[in-house]
Amino acid sequence: MPAYTRLDVDERRRRLLELGADLFTRFAYDELSMSRIAKEAGISKALLYHYFPSKEAYFVATLEEKTAELAARTEPDESLPPLEQLSASLEAYLAWVEENAGSYEKMIRSSSVPEVRALLDRVRGETAQRIVDGIRGDKPATPVLRAAVGGWLWFMDGACLDWLEHRDMDRETVHGLLLATLVGAVLAAGEGL
Amino acid sequence: MPAYTRLDVDERRRRLLELGADLFTRFAYDELSMSRIAKEAGISKALLYHYFPSKEAYFVATLEEKTAELAARTEPDESLPPLEQLSASLEAYLAWVEENAGSYEKMIRSSSVPEVRALLDRVRGETAQRIVDGIRGDKPATPVLRAAVGGWLWFMDGACLDWLEHRDMDRETVHGLLLATLVGAVLAAGEGL
Repeated sequence: MPAYTRLDVDERRRRLLELGADLFTRFAYDELSMSRIAKEAGISKALLYHYFPSKEAYFVATLEEKTAELAARTEPDESLPPLEQLSASLEAYLAWVEENAGSYEKMIRSSSVPEVRALLDRVRGETAQRIVDGIRGDKPATPVLRAAVGGWLWFMDGACLDWLEHRDMDRETVHGLLLATLVGAVLAAGEGL
Repeated sequence: MPAYTRLDVDERRRRLLELGADLFTRFAYDELSMSRIAKEAGISKALLYHYFPSKEAYFVATLEEKTAELAARTEPDESLPPLEQLSASLEAYLAWVEENAGSYEKMIRSSSVPEVRALLDRVRGETAQRIVDGIRGDKPATPVLRAAVGGWLWFMDGACLDWLEHRDMDRETVHGLLLATLVGAVLAAGEGL
């Protein structure tokens, strides 16, 4: 029995999550079994179960890992004015989407799996809050601003899926479209950005 | 053996689809079985299978029926200028969403079921084409206009789900937000509406 140190455990978990992001992108969910995943990872099935109690838990954990990575990369720089913060975060978001196209598409397309939906709703909720705070400071969003910002996050996913499907626009074009549409939606909600 | 006329068959199918729209809204998909549906419909399970080969086929058929109803109600009046056509169709869309809130939410939330996704993609594709035709006439959409209109259809679903969840805006407010955001997105794509 190898005596794993704390670092070994974390490091193996990290590698398993990386492998998962790749596997769940390359294969349909139903094509993968815990046996196959263990084989791909070069570990025993028992050890895999030690880290993740089920295939679903493993899938959700890989998405959570990706989401945390995304959140870190799009963290706004609060020394900038709101519109520039947003523009910079959006640029980081699009760069991440481009690099992680497979995981991103899988996540959006799996939105009726309850755990994935909860994750997506949480990420959208946090992002919406960030944007609303930039616009309203400490005041809560009006209903129409909440709908505008929330709707725009859907716009972003729809436009990104279109971009990844066709790959006939550069990132700057997508960035400009998203930013201008948000400004328009916020304006329509009676606020400025 | 009753000798059903053609009308009887159509009428029974129509009623089964109506019942399905209600049942799939009130119950989780997994809670319903073909036996239970037959019981609710007051017919034999064998007769139900005669109309729909599986629960999934029945579910998809109820969504298709709702979608056809929606398409008929939002059919644009081509005697009007493009922006007014759009405004009128959007008004009809929102009225339909309000009346069919349960089916609508179910459809958007089931978008990773392949048949539902195909149906949603088809409806979004046809609607996007209508809007692009209103803007560009016979010319095809540029990539960025395609992404703008496609993204806006996602915006519409996100904003409608927010509206149905909170119910704290009137339909006119949602209508104004959606229309202004589309105008903004189309403008950002370098076109006018």
